[in-house]
Order: sequence, then C-alpha cells, then structure tokens
Amino acid sequence: MVTRTVDLRSDTVTKPTEAMRAAMATAEVDDDVLGADPTAVRLESEVAAIMGKEAGLFVPSGTMGNLISVLVHCDIRGSEVILGDNSHIHIYENGGISTLGGVHPRPVKNNDDGTMDISSIEAAIRDPRGELVYPTTRLICLENSHANTGGRCLSVDYTDKVGELAKKHGLKLHIDGARIFNASVALGVPVNRLVQAADSVSVCLSKGLGAPVGSVIVGSKNFISKARRLRKTLGGGMRQLGFICAAAFVALKENVAKLEGDHKKAKMLAEGLNQIKCLRVNVAAVETNIIYFDIVEGTKMTAEKLNKNLEEHGVLVMLEGPYRMRIVLHHQISSSDVQYSLSCFQQAFNGVQEENGNQLQPELA
Amino acid sequence: MVTRTVDLRSDTVTKPTEAMRAAMATAEVDDDVLGADPTAVRLESEVAAIMGKEAGLFVPSGTMGNLISVLVHCDIRGSEVILGDNSHIHIYENGGISTLGGVHPRPVKNNDDGTMDISSIEAAIRDPRGELVYPTTRLICLENSHANTGGRCLSVDYTDKVGELAKKHGLKLHIDGARIFNASVALGVPVNRLVQAADSVSVCLSKGLGAPVGSVIVGSKNFISKARRLRKTLGGGMRQLGFICAAAFVALKENVAKLEGDHKKAKMLAEGLNQIKCLRVNVAAVETNIIYFDIVEGTKMTAEKLNKNLEEHGVLVMLEGPYRMRIVLHHQISSSDVQYSLSCFQQAFNGVQEENGNQLQPELA
Amino acid sequence: MVTRTVDLRSDTVTKPTEAMRAAMATAEVDDDVLGADPTAVRLESEVAAIMGKEAGLFVPSGTMGNLISVLVHCDIRGSEVILGDNSHIHIYENGGISTLGGVHPRPVKNNDDGTMDISSIEAAIRDPRGELVYPTTRLICLENSHANTGGRCLSVDYTDKVGELAKKHGLKLHIDGARIFNASVALGVPVNRLVQAADSVSVCLSKGLGAPVGSVIVGSKNFISKARRLRKTLGGGMRQLGFICAAAFVALKENVAKLEGDHKKAKMLAEGLNQIKCLRVNVAAVETNIIYFDIVEGTKMTAEKLNKNLEEHGVLVMLEGPYRMRIVLHHQISSSDVQYSLSCFQQAFNGVQEENGNQLQPELA
Amino acid sequence: MVTRTVDLRSDTVTKPTEAMRAAMATAEVDDDVLGADPTAVRLESEVAAIMGKEAGLFVPSGTMGNLISVLVHCDIRGSEVILGDNSHIHIYENGGISTLGGVHPRPVKNNDDGTMDISSIEAAIRDPRGELVYPTTRLICLENSHANTGGRCLSVDYTDKVGELAKKHGLKLHIDGARIFNASVALGVPVNRLVQAADSVSVCLSKGLGAPVGSVIVGSKNFISKARRLRKTLGGGMRQLGFICAAAFVALKENVAKLEGDHKKAKMLAEGLNQIKCLRVNVAAVETNIIYFDIVEGTKMTAEKLNKNLEEHGVLVMLEGPYRMRIVLHHQISSSDVQYSLSCFQQAFNGVQEENGNQLQPELA
Repeated sequence: MVTRTVDLRSDTVTKPTEAMRAAMATAEVDDDVLGADPTAVRLESEVAAIMGKEAGLFVPSGTMGNLISVLVHCDIRGSEVILGDNSHIHIYENGGISTLGGVHPRPVKNNDDGTMDISSIEAAIRDPRGELVYPTTRLICLENSHANTGGRCLSVDYTDKVGELAKKHGLKLHIDGARIFNASVALGVPVNRLVQAADSVSVCLSKGLGAPVGSVIVGSKNFISKARRLRKTLGGGMRQLGFICAAAFVALKENVAKLEGDHKKAKMLAEGLNQIKCLRVNVAAVETNIIYFDIVEGTKMTAEKLNKNLEEHGVLVMLEGPYRMRIVLHHQISSSDVQYSLSCFQQAFNGVQEENGNQLQPELA
Repeated sequence: MVTRTVDLRSDTVTKPTEAMRAAMATAEVDDDVLGADPTAVRLESEVAAIMGKEAGLFVPSGTMGNLISVLVHCDIRGSEVILGDNSHIHIYENGGISTLGGVHPRPVKNNDDGTMDISSIEAAIRDPRGELVYPTTRLICLENSHANTGGRCLSVDYTDKVGELAKKHGLKLHIDGARIFNASVALGVPVNRLVQAADSVSVCLSKGLGAPVGSVIVGSKNFISKARRLRKTLGGGMRQLGFICAAAFVALKENVAKLEGDHKKAKMLAEGLNQIKCLRVNVAAVETNIIYFDIVEGTKMTAEKLNKNLEEHGVLVMLEGPYRMRIVLHHQISSSDVQYSLSCFQQAFNGVQEENGNQLQPELA
Repeated sequence: MVTRTVDLRSDTVTKPTEAMRAAMATAEVDDDVLGADPTAVRLESEVAAIMGKEAGLFVPSGTMGNLISVLVHCDIRGSEVILGDNSHIHIYENGGISTLGGVHPRPVKNNDDGTMDISSIEAAIRDPRGELVYPTTRLICLENSHANTGGRCLSVDYTDKVGELAKKHGLKLHIDGARIFNASVALGVPVNRLVQAADSVSVCLSKGLGAPVGSVIVGSKNFISKARRLRKTLGGGMRQLGFICAAAFVALKENVAKLEGDHKKAKMLAEGLNQIKCLRVNVAAVETNIIYFDIVEGTKMTAEKLNKNLEEHGVLVMLEGPYRMRIVLHHQISSSDVQYSLSCFQQAFNGVQEENGNQLQPELA
Repeated sequence: MVTRTVDLRSDTVTKPTEAMRAAMATAEVDDDVLGADPTAVRLESEVAAIMGKEAGLFVPSGTMGNLISVLVHCDIRGSEVILGDNSHIHIYENGGISTLGGVHPRPVKNNDDGTMDISSIEAAIRDPRGELVYPTTRLICLENSHANTGGRCLSVDYTDKVGELAKKHGLKLHIDGARIFNASVALGVPVNRLVQAADSVSVCLSKGLGAPVGSVIVGSKNFISKARRLRKTLGGGMRQLGFICAAAFVALKENVAKLEGDHKKAKMLAEGLNQIKCLRVNVAAVETNIIYFDIVEGTKMTAEKLNKNLEEHGVLVMLEGPYRMRIVLHHQISSSDVQYSLSCFQQAFNGVQEENGNQLQPELA
C-alpha cells in the first residue's frame, strides 16, 4: 500500500493552496465576455506590467496561449513560423498551428541548451524575392526555459540577438514563456528584461507558479485586441472568469519566490540520481526545475520497470523513452520528498543484475 | 446615480451563489490533463447521465462545445454541415467551423419558431452522386431552445423527425443545447428524451443554470474521446479543472428547478412591455426566458436612446437593431426586478413625442 | 445505334475548332513559372484590357479562378464572404473556399433573376462593433450570368449598386463571370462597363467561348500579383502554358460574336419545349444560353426516363432533379440540331400515358 | 548581343518538339470534367501501368500532384507528414500542405544523398499513446531523385526499407517522383520496381521528359478517386484536357530514352566546371541531370556577378546563394552547348583577381 505520494511528473500537478481557495471564494467577478471581469482585468494588467508589455489576456492553457500568439502574428494566409524542432509548440501541441491555423512551421534544430543557432534561424528566413514558391516568414518562436532540453535557459543576450534578427527582417518574436519565471530566477535577470525583445509572451501560471488553471499572453494593445477575438473563436472566452484569475493572482504573488528553492532541490535530486551507478544525469544541465536522466545501458532495468517499481512506493515520474525519464520539481515537493524519492530510486536497483550477471549495488560514487 | 441594477442583457451575467463559492473552496481537484480531475469526471458523468448519453466532456464555453462537436463529426476534409441561417453557430461564433476547421456551412432558413423545414433540410443534403463538385454532407445542427428567434423550443416530435432524416442519409445530428434545460422545462419533456435523436449535445451550464464558467458536451464514448483530443488542440484542456466543475455542479443541482420561474417572469415582463403603446412584443412567442421586442415605427425613440435612458436607471438590456432589443431572464431577476424594469420602460416613454407631434403617454392598453 | 449526337449538357463540351488547333501548333511558348510565357502574357493582357482591369492571370478552370479571387480578397483569417445561396461558388465548387481557405460563407437568398436583394446583402454585412463574435465581412460575390437560375443577367444598374454598397462598407466585389460575355451580349452592354464596379472578375474561356481549357481572372496589379502566388500554391502554375492560351485566344477572338446566335437558338428551343404539353419552360426567363425546364406533374414520365430516351437518340441533356432538366446552348449547336432535339423530345412523349390513363399526344399548343 | 542561348536554369524550360505540336493538333478530346477525355484517360492509364499502380490522374503541375497526394493520405484533421527538411514539398511548394490542407509537417534531416536516416524517420513517428498532445502521423514522403541535394537517387533498397517502416506503423508512403525517370535510368532499375513500396507517386512530365505541361499521380483506384475530387476542389479539373495530354504522351514515349544522355552531359559539364580553379563541384555527387557548384572563397567573384557575365553570353543558370549556383541538363542541351557553356564560364574568370591581388587564370587542373 502506498503511504506517501511524491508526484514528480510535472509542475502542473500542484494542488492549489488554501490561500488560492480563499481567493476564489471571495473573488469579485463579472461576465468577461459581455464586458470585463474585474479580477481578470486586474490579473491581466498585473502580468502585462511584470512582463513589461502593454496588455495581457487570460487563456485557459499554455497551448491556447501559444496557438493564439502564433495565429495572431500569422494572420495572413501563407505564413511560416520558425521554431525549434524540439520545442513544445512543434512537438506537444497537436500541430494546432497548422491543423487549425494553416500556419506552416519551419523547424530549426534545437541545440542541447534550447537555443537555435542564430545563423540557422537566419538561413531559414525566406527570401522575399522567392515568394512565388515560398511561404512568407512572419514569426520566430523561442521557448524559455526550454522544457524538452531539461529546462535550459535562454540568456538575455541570446534573446536580444534573435530579437534584432527578427526586427532586421520585419518578423515578430514570440516567446513561449510557460516557465519564463524559472528562467528569470535561474539567470538572475528581471523577467521583463528577459522578454524585452519579444512582441508577445505566453506565461503559464499553472506550472511552477501553482495556479490551478491558466496562462496569460502579453503584448501590444493591438496584439491583445486581436488575441481576444481569436480566444472567442477558439471557445476560450469564459464568463465569470474572476474565480480562476483570483487563484492565479495568488500564485503570481506567492510562488515566484519559491522557484529558487525548486531549482536547488532539482540540483540536489539530480546529483543524488547521478550517484546511482545505473543512472546517468547531466547535472550541469539542470538549470531550473527539470531533470532528464537515462538508465545506463547494460543494466537489466528499463524505464517502464523502474517506473512501476517507483509507483509502488508512491513516487511518480514521467516516462520519456525505453531508458529515459523526466522529473519536474515544484513548490509542493519538500527536501524530505527529495530524500525519500532518492531512497526509492536506490532500492529499485537493489537486486537488479547487470547483463553480465553481476549483482548491481546502487552505490554512491 | 444608479441605485439599483437589473441586468437583463443575458442569462450569462448571473453572479455565482454562495453555495457555488463554497463548493469551489472545498473541491477535490487533480491534473485533468495528465490524468483526470475527480470533480470534472463526476460532473461529466452526471451531465452525460442526465442527457442519456455515454460520456461527457467539460469545455470552457458553449462556443468551444459547438466547435468541437462540429469538427469531430466533420473530421474529414471536404465536410459540409446543414444548420439554421439564424443559428448561434452560424451567426455568433466567428465562423470558427470554417475559419479553424475548414467545414463548409450550408445554412437553411430558420422559421420564426427556430425550426428549419424538414423538406428544406432534405433538399440541402448533397447527392453523393455529385461528389465531384459537392462537399460531403456529414452533419445537421439544431439549436434548442433557439436563441435568435426568442428562445423558441423544438419539440420532441420535430427533433425525432430530423434525427430520422439524418439516419436515413447517414448523417450525424448535433444539438446546440446551450439552453436545452429551458426547452425541456418549457415543453415538459425530460431532457434526455428531448435529445434522444442527437449524436451529440452541447449543454451550457453558465447561462440559465448560473454556473460561472463552462459547458459540457455529451455523446458516445468514441465521440468524447475524439473531442478530448480536439479540446487539447484548441487549448481548452485545463489543469485543476475541478474548481470550475464544482461550481457548475451546484448550478446543475440547484438551478434547473428555477427555470420555470424565469419563464413565468419572462411572460409577465413580455406582457407588460406589450402594453406599452410604443412597444410591440410577440407575447405568444415567449416560450422560455428570452424576449425580443420592437419600438413601433412612428415614435421618436430609437433603441439606442431607450437603452441609454434605461441604463441611467440601472436597467441593462441588449441592443439588437435600430428599433429592436432583447431581454433575457435568469434566476437572479426577482418579480420586483421585473416590476421595476417595467416602470423604467414606462418612464422612458414619458415625454416622447410621436412623429406627428403628439405627446405619447405610455399607457396600458 | 446513335447516328447523331447533340450535346446540350453544357457549353463546356464544345470541341476546339481547327483554328484553335492550328494556333496551338504554332504557339510561341516559354516557361511561365520561371519567367513568363509570351502567349500567356498576351492573353492575360488582352482579357484584362477587354474587362477594363489592370492585369490578368490565366488559371486552369473557373473554379480555380473563383477560389483564388475569394482567397486573395479574404487573405486574413476570420474573413466572411457574402454570396448567393444558389451561386456556383456556394453550390458547385466543393466548398473549397472553406475547405481549403477557411473562409466563412454567408449565403444570401438568390432571387429567381439571380440577384440578391440589396437590403439583404446590407443586412448580412457584419457590424464591425460585434467583431468579438462576428467574422469580418470582406467580400461580396455576384455571378453574371447566373447559371442556376437559368443564365439570368445582372444589369449594370444592379451591379453598380452592389459595388457602391461594397465601397460604402469597405468591402471588395468579385464577379463570377464564367458567362459574363453572355450577359454582356444579352444586355447589350460592353463587358468592361458591366464589371466596372468589380474589384475582380473570373472569366471563363472554355464555356460559351469554346476554348478547350481555362479561365482568366482580372483585377488590379496588386490583386493579380497575390493571385499568381496563390495559383502556384494551389498547383495551378503551368510551364509552357502558351499552347492552352493560344487556343483560348482564338476563342476570345472568334466566338464572342457567336453568343447572340446561341441565345436565339436557346429561345427557339425553349419555346419549342414549352409547346410540348408535358413540359413547362419559363420562356421569358431564357435570357442567354441556358434553359431549365420541368416535366409537368401527373405525367408518367420522369427526368431519368426522359434522359434515357433522349440519349438513345443522341440528345444529351443534364438531369437536375426527378422532374427537372437543364439544357445549355453553344456555338456547335446548329439550328438543325435544335429542330432535331425538339423532335426527339416530342417522340419521347409518344406513348406516355397520363396518370389517369389517357394517352398523351405531345402536341404543339 | 546574345547570339546563342543555352538555358541551364531547369529542365522545365524545354520547348515542345514538333512531334508534340503535331500530337496536340490532332488530339482526340472531350470534356474531362463531365465525363472523361479519351486522350487523358489513355495517358493516365499508360503512366499508371508504367509505374505499376492501379490508376493515374493528370494534374497541371508537380506541386498539385504532391499537394493532392499529401491531402488525400492526410484527409483527417490532425494529420502529420514526415518529410525531408530539404525536400521540394517542404521548401518550394509555398507550405501549401499546411496553408491549404492544415497538414502538420514533421521534417527530418535530409542527408547529402537525399535520404533521411531510417532511424530518424522512425523516431519521428508519433506514439499513438500520446495522441492527446500529438498529431497523428499518417504519411512519409520521399523525393527521388532528390532535387535539392543535386539530383541524388534513392535506391530500391532504401525505398523498400522506408516502405516496410511505413507498413509496420500503418502509414502511407508517397514519392515525389518529379524526376523519378532520371532516378530509374541512373540506377538502372525499372521505374515500377523503384516505386513498388509507394502508395502514391507524383510523376512530372514537364521536367526532363519535356512535356509542355503536367504531372500524373498514380496509386490505387480508391486513392485516385479521392484525388480526382480534390483536383476539382483545387480548380485543377480541366475541360478538353486531351491536348495537353497528347503532348505529354509524346514526351513519355520519346524522351525517357534521352535521359541517359542528359546525365552524361551533366557529368561532363560538372567535370569541366570542377577544373576551373575558382569553382568547386562535387563531381561524384552528380548522379543525374543536376549540378550544384560553388565559387571558392577568396575569389573576387560572386554568383551574382558570374550570373550576369554568363547571361551576356546567353548562358542561363540558377542563382542559389551568394556563392552557389545550379545547372540542370535536359534533352535540348547538346554536347556543343556544354562545350560553349564551359568556355563561357572560363572567360568569366579571366581578369578576375584573387583577393590577394593575383590575377586568376582559369586553368584546367
């Protein structure tokens, strides 16, 4: 019987705090479709101010935030977007920008640190003289922190350079900032500075910040005006939206400060896992709250088996491949949870034989 | 200074009750994207059971409910949907089924009672032999009650007949049931019987039922499975969704019983307005909670002027044309509010001159 | 055994003349995708000049001409087009504007003469203030002559009025001019005057004009530049296009003058058919080269049976319904063919009994 | 003054032969939209037979051939196609599969020989268990010969392996065979064997084969039936299509045999260019009729300058980058043209100084 649960699958699994519940119970609300819900307006303005942009719009998910942003920037038929070939938009959003929006993606190789080479981005921009056979490049998308490379952060310098490139070619720059606060904290750079070059940012409040639901997209007033209409088209317009926003407001106020702790625990956990002989973690790459790790070859252990074993002890992680797993830290994981998880990993390798027959002792190096 | 507000613009403007707030504050929640939120699951099952369908799915709005339903039934490129030329989907949903889904609408004339002639529907079904130049008809959409004709109800008999026609031609039937409970109550027919012929129904919980946010679509398990995926594509997947569902659950439990009262008040208000010499209301057509009415010609009053005057007294209605207005009743409008509103309408016509110069006395006929 | 064929199914069935074949055999051609085919350029310029527009573009079909025109005018996501509910674009083009282009159609009732009431068009234009829930009206489409109402012609006056309405609301006007030359000849109005109000016209050369293949769309230089790119996207860019254009050029030069004869023969045939007791033709409505006619009720004859009988005598017509048929005249139908066809119709009713048992004598009234 | 023109820009620039013109002048034609044009039917059947597939369909361009093929295989909303990141479909077709078809592309790195690693293709296939966030992989596209890597050929073995992979995962395989005959000739493999694993092939007749216009797509009867409808939707249905097909038929009959000569001349030209000190050509990579070459760094010559110089002597090539050019051989380039072109290249470098100031003598190594 599982007596303790440590849910490390994602930072989306956090349970709302009492403060969030209280905020919801007392939120001032109104019909946000007919006019404007005051709590939604307050949250949208606050996030816009924090991000240094003119206006904001609440959306039910990060996926909708990215979808709307790409579609608003690419509102003319025949648009192309340059984005990372390992980015969330390209891999995990159902291809919605094409399926629903008809936007053609032009993926550029993501490096291990989440960047795309500036020269590769520039090479992917379509020459306007070839417009008879080329779609029109209208947008570059970055993702910061970059989830699929393990939460790696894009620097201000890099982001600014991409911004300059975009301007030079008359393109827009969107940042998928699902975890932009993690990047800001890890880099020690104010978040508004970090996204200064961007025309739009999608900021998720229900990941590391722990809100139950929602993201906010920010940009110019004109961008947000178009985004509001598209949100309605997609069916993302909600009536007494203020409840959800009230909880998100608490998340924004209380939980940004906790991200640094999440990152420390992630580092600690990564180091602990790396000391297990059968696991391999690139500890240096753990910059924020995400850890990718591999089971070393030659071990009679698969990710599926390990996952099952851990589940029996209440430790939930994410399968990423036959020998690959992912862990994401969040504010509801304590140091004690980290220690407990490590011990569960260690016991899982007790009795596991190497393929040559020797008993593997999970030992600290 | 306005001392009293009577918001008759729509039944979407209701403020959540204390019971809803309490339900939110104590709701059991989980990540509905990674697995399933228990409160969401409970609500979806409950609505599905009430509607007599296999499964349900919570969506943030009625627009998304309709959009997903149409797109799931029309998931093959080249699909056409037959729907009312005065239906909510055709008029008020941004053309999303085409804009986002590429579905071609084939509007058929809506009669004053919200029906389309069965023969007209049949005539609009494409002959499969002409498929070289015809899109493929895949879906018929009804709307019950039918908002734009004043909340008129489609009978079981009519709905069944359309259902038979659909089956005969291998088509699906979707009902936009944003106000299906109003129709059920007005017709005195159990709601599951009323939608028996439908393959899918979109049920709004944030209109007359008073939930802060959300609709539920219901249908077969297979339909809902496809709908869940499309909801994610649209960005309608939400994390700790249970809060919203908890409030909606209260709406479902407590407010269906209040609809009959809304309809009575609507009738009362319609009759009162009709007795004002300058207004014309088809009282017989007020079957549920919606009233459309016109300012008679020859009066020196426009809808815009009247609206402004009413606003100054805290009575909010919806402009529908230069001489046309709409009122929607809901559970937070008391009999006293109805009387107050009537008196405000009456005073508005004090001092209004007929175009031939005579002073108009708003008088009861 | 059929010894004579009179193909009245459509004016698309004409066989190219010797002059067209000769023109193809000697046409000067080049790669029209890499640069420009001289014969294509010549044809495009000529048609543009005739229509009084800046530029032209050859396309392989009228369907592509309309599709490109609608998509160019509606190049921003969320566009709506107002068009006749009985128009070729709405009924016979596979719903391509939605299926491929995501454009939302707003059909308005076509009157029996092919017009839509100006007031109905104006009522269908979306109020920009409602843009949160409305698509944006960007285009009005007319069809002249209007095929599905029997080739009826829209007058200069009507067209100009629609053009003024479009301008007033900032909309574009496209004319599906598949048979615009028929309208011009029937009305006695120069074709450039007839389309003066239009921003774009799609002109078919392979209908009454008898070219083997192709249409030309005309409009401003900017419009044509966008159209050229979209033609490539659709796959309508062709290499040594000049052959096709050379034949079309002959059609344009030689066959406009023949249209008046087609119209006369259509009138003659319509009158003849109408004198057959079992057939009903609205002779007054036959303004150009198209005849719709019905088999009168109470006759033991269906369109299918009649069609089969006629086929056995080499007379080919188009089935339009259980009791409805269509005939289209063209320059390869002689007066003798008309007489022969009439005699075939007459014999078809020999031996046909009325439903009350009497033998029907097809007789001239 | 240019006295001689050698057009090496593409194999699309060929002028139709007298035999083609004669075939057009005598072609038997009919309305291919209403029924079937006999010459079109004959060509479609012939190409299908040659390719070893059930049926064929004539389309006005290779772009439409690919577009239709991808859209037919991906006819359900939410489809993804795996294709080369340097493939014609991804780079040169306006993003039409997304723009018009809503299909999401998943590009995989093209190697220098035009292949994608089988393991990379397999890794890109979406795991059906992740369908909540993944589009559905439905198609793999290969291109043979592969234009952008210089006309490299995919072997039977490679193609079969990709076919097996597709089958294993329930996917379809489309081959963009714009120059499939070049590949067949270069590999010495019958063309039907080369595409045996494919569910559809798009074959261009107006590239190396020299037809004025058109491609044929081949596949199963069911595939072609859907393709025919989609061709109509796109506006690619043409009336008296037989003229174009008649010329294409001649191309098919007469010009396949000439491809081997084109390849030899390409090799000869490539070797000649490579002997010019300032040019670098990967001669070994010239497997068919395409040559990519670079101006070596440190030369005071750019592709633009060189192009201008060559143009003055009537030699037309394609600019591909600041220092990169492309040449394509075809049956209307004689050995003498090759020699002349080489001499023009050589003279162009006379007088060109290296950047260090020395006069460069274009010399044979």
